[in-house]
Amino acid sequence: MEQPEKVIARELARHHKEISVAEFFERNKHLLGFENPTKALLTCVREAVDNALDACEEARILPDIYVEVKQVEPEKYRIVVEDNGPGIPKSKIPKVFGKLLYGSKFSLRQSRGQQGIGISAAVLYAQLTTGVPTKVYSRIGDGKTHIYQLYIDVKKNEPEIISEKTIETPGRGTRIELVVKGRYMKGKSSIDEYLRETAIMNPFARIVYVAPDGRETEFERAVEELPPVPREIQPHPHGVELGFLARMLKQTKCRNLSGFLTTELSRIGRTTVREICERAGIDPSTNPKTLTMQEVEALIKAMRETKIQAPPTDCLSPVGEEAIKQGIRKETRPEFIAVVSRKPTTYRGYPFQVEVGIGYGGDIPAEGPAEIMRFANRVPLLYQQAACAITRAITSVAWQRYGIKQPNGGLPHGPLVIAVHIASVWIPYTSEGKEAIASYPEIVGEIKKALQEAGRKLSVYLSKRTRQREVETKKRMLESYSIELASVLAEITGERKENILEWIHGLVRERVKEVDITVRGKGIEISTGEEGEQQKREFQSHLSVLPASSPKENDEGGE
Amino acid sequence: MEQPEKVIARELARHHKEISVAEFFERNKHLLGFENPTKALLTCVREAVDNALDACEEARILPDIYVEVKQVEPEKYRIVVEDNGPGIPKSKIPKVFGKLLYGSKFSLRQSRGQQGIGISAAVLYAQLTTGVPTKVYSRIGDGKTHIYQLYIDVKKNEPEIISEKTIETPGRGTRIELVVKGRYMKGKSSIDEYLRETAIMNPFARIVYVAPDGRETEFERAVEELPPVPREIQPHPHGVELGFLARMLKQTKCRNLSGFLTTELSRIGRTTVREICERAGIDPSTNPKTLTMQEVEALIKAMRETKIQAPPTDCLSPVGEEAIKQGIRKETRPEFIAVVSRKPTTYRGYPFQVEVGIGYGGDIPAEGPAEIMRFANRVPLLYQQAACAITRAITSVAWQRYGIKQPNGGLPHGPLVIAVHIASVWIPYTSEGKEAIASYPEIVGEIKKALQEAGRKLSVYLSKRTRQREVETKKRMLESYSIELASVLAEITGERKENILEWIHGLVRERVKEVDITVRGKGIEISTGEEGEQQKREFQSHLSVLPASSPKENDEGGE
Repeated sequence: MEQPEKVIARELARHHKEISVAEFFERNKHLLGFENPTKALLTCVREAVDNALDACEEARILPDIYVEVKQVEPEKYRIVVEDNGPGIPKSKIPKVFGKLLYGSKFSLRQSRGQQGIGISAAVLYAQLTTGVPTKVYSRIGDGKTHIYQLYIDVKKNEPEIISEKTIETPGRGTRIELVVKGRYMKGKSSIDEYLRETAIMNPFARIVYVAPDGRETEFERAVEELPPVPREIQPHPHGVELGFLARMLKQTKCRNLSGFLTTELSRIGRTTVREICERAGIDPSTNPKTLTMQEVEALIKAMRETKIQAPPTDCLSPVGEEAIKQGIRKETRPEFIAVVSRKPTTYRGYPFQVEVGIGYGGDIPAEGPAEIMRFANRVPLLYQQAACAITRAITSVAWQRYGIKQPNGGLPHGPLVIAVHIASVWIPYTSEGKEAIASYPEIVGEIKKALQEAGRKLSVYLSKRTRQREVETKKRMLESYSIELASVLAEITGERKENILEWIHGLVRERVKEVDITVRGKGIEISTGEEGEQQKREFQSHLSVLPASSPKENDEGGE
Repeated sequence: MEQPEKVIARELARHHKEISVAEFFERNKHLLGFENPTKALLTCVREAVDNALDACEEARILPDIYVEVKQVEPEKYRIVVEDNGPGIPKSKIPKVFGKLLYGSKFSLRQSRGQQGIGISAAVLYAQLTTGVPTKVYSRIGDGKTHIYQLYIDVKKNEPEIISEKTIETPGRGTRIELVVKGRYMKGKSSIDEYLRETAIMNPFARIVYVAPDGRETEFERAVEELPPVPREIQPHPHGVELGFLARMLKQTKCRNLSGFLTTELSRIGRTTVREICERAGIDPSTNPKTLTMQEVEALIKAMRETKIQAPPTDCLSPVGEEAIKQGIRKETRPEFIAVVSRKPTTYRGYPFQVEVGIGYGGDIPAEGPAEIMRFANRVPLLYQQAACAITRAITSVAWQRYGIKQPNGGLPHGPLVIAVHIASVWIPYTSEGKEAIASYPEIVGEIKKALQEAGRKLSVYLSKRTRQREVETKKRMLESYSIELASVLAEITGERKENILEWIHGLVRERVKEVDITVRGKGIEISTGEEGEQQKREFQSHLSVLPASSPKENDEGGE
């Protein structure tokens, strides 16, 4: 072994240093969805469009969004995203775009962005890969446009302004121009698909998209009304963690514990305060800042043991059954759509709500696994399908029960589109790249229930459809048999064959639709039932009277 | 639409704020491997043990590590990890444990930690879930132990010291005590498994582990020598990104571009500098700080177009074939082990090296999919197997070719243990939780090649084994047949049956092992070949002479 002195000397010389969060993400850009040029291009577009939609929605403006992606060099693209939103005040522009972990979205409120990372990460990616500063235009309706060109100072995680100027123009909105390394692809995880799915889940938005090949696509506004404003909520006492509560207590402006509990946590009233404080053995008038960690622990324990109303759920803004139906219909033209919207519920004290739409048949390809569309707070998730709570829920459903094939217990197969939307004040993404939702049991469970409900609706439809088809087959069979029958009858009765045929057809049309079909177990069994038997007998008796005289008037006699 | 004034007013009132990286990870603890109590407990142990191993290795001390996990309340555990490493100087203790993104490991050097997040994340998790400050003891061999109790000030991402004291004790090392919310489980992703696999890949370490049930396990040191010190390298010109290079140029202490290129990037000599600068149209004597972004871009382009030697690979410290073999043998007792160590190569300018060990048969369960052991810089990866480059590589191999079953083209099945180790100066983890390796094509390709090589070795062994078995069967058959033969011969010749039998057995033993067996295609075909035919004839001729006199001496005559 070495001498201690040497070890000490070496250890003291070891170079410890600190890096900024920007430097961290510069090294780890794959954590933010920038691991390859194809995905990075999509991520940049998505961050800008999500921001635009959030801004418009918050300002109660029907969004009008322009997206342009243009190749400027091999593997180098210019992205333009412009909205008619409220704009950003001059003083805030640099930090909103030039600083990671800065923004207006850290509260518990349903929005597309939730971390203040997305758009500045795109700026960082642009400067890292092409060195072109990001250009931002902002008009807040005061007749001026502020134009910035900026980088992120990676060492400090602060904006570095390259140029700024103000020109006179009317109107309002934000426009961002990014030049990034990228690769443009079509298909399942493309910008085109992202915008298509975004249009489905945001029918109140109008989006114009100019693709790199110059083609312009317009996603028309389908609904003229904005969804209700998502309300911000306070953390729920049953979901809050010890260390987080300790921090809240230290930072609060409330001067006593009672005030803190009722205003900074949700669902705690005067009575509940008393109950909690008694259980915890703490005076409600205590200054929150003076609580020891032991007292905070006692407080948490007391809250867990106290019955407290579930968090408010009117803070959520679901898409709505009608909008989901319309979206699926417009984009995939199925023959049937089952939509289920579950009631809001909670995980870890966070309200969330699940909506599901299943499209079946029609223009949907009949072979292979179902097409899955995943959405979180109206944002389509295009990557990491296998790692997502939504996929886990889908594969956990026994689809055979609803008449759908499911080879090897995986995804259901057939002409199916399954769209799942989760709205929450806090979506637990598995990574900062917002690609998949973590599999909290409460979330997976809710999705599963919604899918099962939709599955039952689909199953009812499929049974009806099968019955319909069986009836049609039967009808066709009877009708074709009737020609022969009519010939014989015509010969015997002397009545015109056409008349007899017409009468038989009328009878078949009228009666056969009542044939009873029941679904039993896996197979479908057709039985004419009691009513059917009756009908069969009636039909035979009708036939049996034919020989006597005119088929229409006479109804007596035997064979 | 609303009036612009209102929109402006609302937008101006919008509360923008900044959060610290500690606050970010407090909210997103699942990004660091703390998403559930079971995983969180493992992550805490892992971060502490990885740090201990790194510290010992860097200080050239054979690691002696003590790990204790003890339940103190339901879902609350105390973790103690102590090492005989160099200790940490007093002044650095608070930041090493109480600040995220602080450490000595941001350079391009193979080590277990690479971000300066791990151990402080564990401290953060402890304070968040139990509120108990983390206790650190450090001795750097100067006769003193410094004891700190600390939190992380989440708002500032700075250490918050609760208490500190110094006592007089000899020796050196670091001890950390964490009290965290956790759940202790056995099985595939357990602490026990993590330590077992750690012992396999770090045979130079001695680890003593006291589990929550009080059982003590000792993983003995198997090798008395430390692996070579991993060398730090400079970024390679072909892997460096534009924005990163721009930043390096701004921060360099070199006063001319030539000096910068030769000292701060790897593999650039005087001649290459000239070539690059000429291509880029930049004077090598230019002050690096004055380069414009256009010039940096030209520089990057010029570097890409210039032939530059691959990055040095002697900076890597692989485990070594012998150690892998020993590790697999000790832990799984197979009947055969194939080990392959590939040559170092690079991805995105980062050197990396793949090592593979496949254990077969013996005590390994014969049914079901192979057991996969994944390692990155000697650290076992226990989660996210499906998302890992290693798994992708394993499933991409056509195992049938090596006589191994592979149902549905997934994991190979049978009595198999597959261990894969990747050593690199920068492991591209898919998340900060260090659970899986991102699927860079170069990495997947190297692993695949290593597996194929090992597969071929295994296949040769399996053929030999099959041949061996066939021979054994043949031998047994001949031997059993020989009894009957001997009886008949004894009767005819009057020789004692035992003598004849002995003679036949000797002959069989001697000759049959030479029977030639060849492997053709998928099936195994046994042919006696030319030599075998000869042998058969000889055998027959030996038999045919028996009747004449003593079986041992006489070798003439016909039937």
